[in-house]
Amino acid sequence: MSIVSTLISKLTPDWLAHYPKEKLGADIAAGLIVTILVIPQSLAYALLAGLPPQLGLYVSIFPVIAYALLGSSRVQAVGPVAITAIMTFSVLSPLAAPGSPAYIGLAASLALLSGLMVLACGLLRLGFLSQLLSRPVNSGFISGSAVLILISQAKHLLGVSPQGDSNWAMFLDLLYKIPHSAGPTLAIGLSALVVLIFVKSRLSGLLQRAGLNAGSAAFIVRLMPLVVVLAGTLTVVHWQLDRLHGVVVVGSIVEGLPGFAFFLPDSATIKTLIIPAFVMTLIGMVQNISMAQALAIKRRERIDANAELVGLGAANVVAGFYGGMPVGGGLSRSAVNVAAGAQTPLASIISATTMIAVVAGAAHWFERLPLAVLAAAIMTAAFSMIDLRAFRQAWAYDRADGLALLGTAGGVLLFGLEIGIGIGVLLSIATLLFRASVPHIAVVGRIPGSEHFRNVERHGVETIPGVLFIRIDERLFFGNLGAVELRLNQELANAAGIHDLVLVMSAVNLMDGTAVDVFAEMNRDLAERGIRLHLAEVKGPIQDRLMRTTLWSTLSGHVFLSANAAFETLKETADQAVERTA
Amino acid sequence: MSIVSTLISKLTPDWLAHYPKEKLGADIAAGLIVTILVIPQSLAYALLAGLPPQLGLYVSIFPVIAYALLGSSRVQAVGPVAITAIMTFSVLSPLAAPGSPAYIGLAASLALLSGLMVLACGLLRLGFLSQLLSRPVNSGFISGSAVLILISQAKHLLGVSPQGDSNWAMFLDLLYKIPHSAGPTLAIGLSALVVLIFVKSRLSGLLQRAGLNAGSAAFIVRLMPLVVVLAGTLTVVHWQLDRLHGVVVVGSIVEGLPGFAFFLPDSATIKTLIIPAFVMTLIGMVQNISMAQALAIKRRERIDANAELVGLGAANVVAGFYGGMPVGGGLSRSAVNVAAGAQTPLASIISATTMIAVVAGAAHWFERLPLAVLAAAIMTAAFSMIDLRAFRQAWAYDRADGLALLGTAGGVLLFGLEIGIGIGVLLSIATLLFRASVPHIAVVGRIPGSEHFRNVERHGVETIPGVLFIRIDERLFFGNLGAVELRLNQELANAAGIHDLVLVMSAVNLMDGTAVDVFAEMNRDLAERGIRLHLAEVKGPIQDRLMRTTLWSTLSGHVFLSANAAFETLKETADQAVERTA
Repeated sequence: MSIVSTLISKLTPDWLAHYPKEKLGADIAAGLIVTILVIPQSLAYALLAGLPPQLGLYVSIFPVIAYALLGSSRVQAVGPVAITAIMTFSVLSPLAAPGSPAYIGLAASLALLSGLMVLACGLLRLGFLSQLLSRPVNSGFISGSAVLILISQAKHLLGVSPQGDSNWAMFLDLLYKIPHSAGPTLAIGLSALVVLIFVKSRLSGLLQRAGLNAGSAAFIVRLMPLVVVLAGTLTVVHWQLDRLHGVVVVGSIVEGLPGFAFFLPDSATIKTLIIPAFVMTLIGMVQNISMAQALAIKRRERIDANAELVGLGAANVVAGFYGGMPVGGGLSRSAVNVAAGAQTPLASIISATTMIAVVAGAAHWFERLPLAVLAAAIMTAAFSMIDLRAFRQAWAYDRADGLALLGTAGGVLLFGLEIGIGIGVLLSIATLLFRASVPHIAVVGRIPGSEHFRNVERHGVETIPGVLFIRIDERLFFGNLGAVELRLNQELANAAGIHDLVLVMSAVNLMDGTAVDVFAEMNRDLAERGIRLHLAEVKGPIQDRLMRTTLWSTLSGHVFLSANAAFETLKETADQAVERTA
Repeated sequence: MSIVSTLISKLTPDWLAHYPKEKLGADIAAGLIVTILVIPQSLAYALLAGLPPQLGLYVSIFPVIAYALLGSSRVQAVGPVAITAIMTFSVLSPLAAPGSPAYIGLAASLALLSGLMVLACGLLRLGFLSQLLSRPVNSGFISGSAVLILISQAKHLLGVSPQGDSNWAMFLDLLYKIPHSAGPTLAIGLSALVVLIFVKSRLSGLLQRAGLNAGSAAFIVRLMPLVVVLAGTLTVVHWQLDRLHGVVVVGSIVEGLPGFAFFLPDSATIKTLIIPAFVMTLIGMVQNISMAQALAIKRRERIDANAELVGLGAANVVAGFYGGMPVGGGLSRSAVNVAAGAQTPLASIISATTMIAVVAGAAHWFERLPLAVLAAAIMTAAFSMIDLRAFRQAWAYDRADGLALLGTAGGVLLFGLEIGIGIGVLLSIATLLFRASVPHIAVVGRIPGSEHFRNVERHGVETIPGVLFIRIDERLFFGNLGAVELRLNQELANAAGIHDLVLVMSAVNLMDGTAVDVFAEMNRDLAERGIRLHLAEVKGPIQDRLMRTTLWSTLSGHVFLSANAAFETLKETADQAVERTA
């Protein structure tokens, strides 16, 4: 099936072609509820990204529809999310003044570029590229970004304006200005924060203990941020806090539907944004796939990772085309969707349609929403993104994983998102190479009465005098040959009088050309010292290649199918030698 | 033993403390002969490096003594060599005018920096760092550099002056100017080239067929370049070719010993030269160790790689301190040494001492040596550095090795030495990661009557209905989990009705934290589908770690010591099930 016909058949997705009518009511209800619930976070993440608030609403329309038609998850919802928002701000704020037309154009270009990359990955089935990020790196990236978000929002909560030419300088200035916080702003923001944290951590348990079922409790919890936002707005309106006490509010929200302006970036913009767009692509793919997978497992459905990427990519391309901001699969958005009872992507389409109405006429209701309350909502989300448990687990299992996580998080905080993720990837690859360069090598012997060979130090095993069985537990490649040679020579020196060396290759998954050369030299060298070199349990693919080399044709010993065959043969020879001597 | 005491004890090396008097005659004779034989190449490589000719003689004195006292090879000789000379020229010519005082200072700094790095590697036993370069990369680097040398020397042979702002433009201009070659220069240069190539490829065979023994034949072959140089010089002097026909000669050679000027580079110079110095260090280490090893094997001696590096590093530091050029272990230099009958490093010390006399009074004999003849000598050496056989071998064994070699050689030619070697290293690492990301996975069964498990597709093996044995032949890490999961699901889909999946882990040498997480999720997912997950032949170090994870505590199946134990247990269960049904 060609890409085009795939696309066309995708455009009438399965769930729509066989839509079960009994689900219609649930989907319509969920769609309407979701629209209202996601308005505050849509505004908040647009502001976090340094964009006018209405952009958050715009990208909750057409990108959502694109994803509903093309994605494979039944209940995941896309929209502006915290990670893409902070990435957008962090990448673009050095390039243009946040909120300016140039800045908005750059945000649209970023969405378009990363959307095209994700789309290409989906269509070309390159989803595995997201594997470049190990879980510790991904987790470190998210935690580091969450701290960046906390720092960026603290100023709204405190009602101060820190100055500085770097993240670090701004942060220090913020700390310095804490005593000068604006009282009313701080009061309203801290109250919202306390309520939201209480809601997030305790409310569900309390409601369930009071007799509600889990579904209703979850729904009420999801409803609470909207309640807090409304309460904050009403407080501001009632006491005129914005006009009399300097509480900063969202401010004018442009109403009406945006025109379909085509934002096509020029080549200079593409050059500047290509690396950030790539990082955003990787992170977006990992986030989206893992979240869709988690949701699907809970609902016992399956997702198709590549269709998932096509959906996410198309959503971003659409967002980019009409001047929006990058979107992602949102954890809280999807949770709202599930809690509101969505059954199929139709819920998202209903929600997008409703959002058109909001944008066209109701957006101004949110103009006097205090930024401090939005900041509290964003910070609550950011707190839950910091995953200390992941760090403890990674550190406990493998120090190197822990370091990769820390390095990524630290890099994100100190040097920015791209360098942070670069540090993480380099640390992961360096660990991999380092591990492979110090291979595990064991002298083995046969467990009596069996055909199994085990480490002589861990098990009581039988050996043959003058014969050394050594198992190499690593691929043989240019990076570890020195270590392997050194170890083999040490073992030969430890056990004097060796005349046969058997290398058990059961765990050697690869031998590169350098390894073949070095082993051919070793074979010659050992032969001069009167030691025969044998190979055992060489894997099929390696053997196929070795047969064409001088190592194979000049090998002083034999190639045995199994270590046991080598053992039997060499034991017989040794026994005969003893008999001759006797 | 501390570094200082190591150094002191090294300063009275073994061979000197127990010097066998019967070797004295041979060493003195060899030392005197070597001095004379290496004069032409010392001048040539200094000119190749863009330096005044006498510098090649200077660094044949004190650096040689430093190496003789500290190195571990008995007959290797250091001095200016082709690779370090072309690297010096290629790195420094964009920074200063060749031959200018600034250029000479930079060359000394380069020698000093790379000397310190090599010395540090030797003292800290970091010689294994040179493993960063696989043989194909090393071979590609040498071949690419050799082509650069050929291009750089062709102008002297032709007697033209190509212009251009890049290697490539200069090369094209050179081709364009071939018809304008200077007749006398070309005649003398081409004659020298033809004679030298004949000498190198045929003379030894002819002499031996004429009755000479191999040693004498080799000695005469080594003597011939000097004869050619003398003949060229006498031709120039006799017909006044330099004064009347524009044949370019070496020109004034400053006589007398250089003062011990301390060239300490400033921080800007260090910053500029640090990467080239590092590349030079890597290449120097690989060249030196492999050459010393080859010589030692022939003479049935052993070398100590780290002592070797201390010697090479010290030689360069000494060269750098008194304003010299980088030196290396020279193949032809060492071959001259062996052919002249050197027995111990004393020969090098004698040679260095004799060189003092040459520098003090006899260097002017070489002032009218035509550059075309030196170019012919350098080009002859460069021809033998181009190793097409290595490429054919690498390509035949592994396309990726062949590509790494080509990529390095091409990178060296097109983008310069550092980028070339960078390309090579990246290609090698990318190959490694790519191979690990597409693991070899086989469905296995038991060879009847044995405890061996083999690929069901390659061997006739027994299996158990409803039980799948799968062997994974690769470390499990973040980069290949997607591929592994995909393959496992495919195999489960192919063989319907599976209720037990046994993963044979005999070739899994490592499991990172991401792998543990993914397998824990897979275990849960499989359990929901009614499939038990078992592990067999988990390696000791991995098992030690796994025992602390949720994968271990929640595993739906068992952990078996061997695949055979799993087979026996699951077969019994299957048989009982059949009995119950019957």
